[in-house]
Amino acid sequence: MRLYQMQDSGNCYKPRLLVHMTGRDLALVDIDILKGESRTPDFLAKNPNGRVPVLELEDGRLLAESNAMLFHLAQGTPYWPDDAFEQAQVLQWMFFEQYSHEPYIAVARYWRSIRPGGAEEARDRFPEWHDRGYQALDVMERQLAAQDWFVGTRMTIADIALYAYSHVAHEGGFSLNAYPAVRNWIARIEAQPLYVPMSWRPV
Amino acid sequence: MRLYQMQDSGNCYKPRLLVHMTGRDLALVDIDILKGESRTPDFLAKNPNGRVPVLELEDGRLLAESNAMLFHLAQGTPYWPDDAFEQAQVLQWMFFEQYSHEPYIAVARYWRSIRPGGAEEARDRFPEWHDRGYQALDVMERQLAAQDWFVGTRMTIADIALYAYSHVAHEGGFSLNAYPAVRNWIARIEAQPLYVPMSWRPV
Repeated sequence: MRLYQMQDSGNCYKPRLLVHMTGRDLALVDIDILKGESRTPDFLAKNPNGRVPVLELEDGRLLAESNAMLFHLAQGTPYWPDDAFEQAQVLQWMFFEQYSHEPYIAVARYWRSIRPGGAEEARDRFPEWHDRGYQALDVMERQLAAQDWFVGTRMTIADIALYAYSHVAHEGGFSLNAYPAVRNWIARIEAQPLYVPMSWRPV
Repeated sequence: MRLYQMQDSGNCYKPRLLVHMTGRDLALVDIDILKGESRTPDFLAKNPNGRVPVLELEDGRLLAESNAMLFHLAQGTPYWPDDAFEQAQVLQWMFFEQYSHEPYIAVARYWRSIRPGGAEEARDRFPEWHDRGYQALDVMERQLAAQDWFVGTRMTIADIALYAYSHVAHEGGFSLNAYPAVRNWIARIEAQPLYVPMSWRPV
């Protein structure tokens, strides 16, 4: 399998982390979105939506959307539960991540720490991003104060999806000081035997 | 089953439409988000994220996120494919809907046609919403010019998810004139034997 990706992107980190935790191989093809490499005709033929990551399977089939990749890669692994209602809950948290979390926490990080000059250019947007991002963290804290993992009693792809940008929220200007359950959950993920950090690349 | 919902919300329409097309019953409990009814302590106990819809199963278990509901309600029906890769593609389009489509097309409709005074209050945001919304429609047009349904050869919950706000895009100030494949697909859905419009309520 091959992942068209950007190393600093939390969305691209999600499939890298799951693949490592499930003992599989993945080749990386770097796409620099800051240089417009996700909008070239070649790349748009792979994903008309012009976004990384894109996963290419052995047979050449292509899949976009990081959380759809997590779903696909988790089939037959412990990271996708057997129970039908728990499966729906996993997806609930993954849709929460893409709708109520990523557009604020990841986007603030992009403009503050990834895109050169972004902090100044997007200055007027940060108050809204911080308000909405902290609302998402409030929802996470409430869930994680009651249980170790978002769904059921073990780590699933819902945890991977939400971990990807939560653990670098400070790069978007967020503080996790008021979120002890989120901090403990981050430590719990990072203590998993097959955990690898965002900087990790397969050799 | 019971759906906590708002009739005019496309996200709430999604489970109503699927339930009708699969011949099941659903009781509706109206929540007026304009009156703050999705932020009361009672409602927040059902969904800490303070959003409709919320689905309550017969045994009292609760599920948030419209697309997670579609996944749950579609299990065992023709609207969820059997093939593992097609399942991932359905979710790909549903994550596309929540990340690249709904935040522009549904949000523009909300501020222009649902929220009193919203068109004036959000005036500065419409150019971005329209740019990004038309980008999403471009991606849809490209897919639907090549095939009748988003995934495979029959209607799935990916079509329901994307139909919900596409068919009322004009209420957000969008024109579908340049999108003949999207218009034909909308007509195809509305010609399904068990189709019901957004205004439909169970008796």
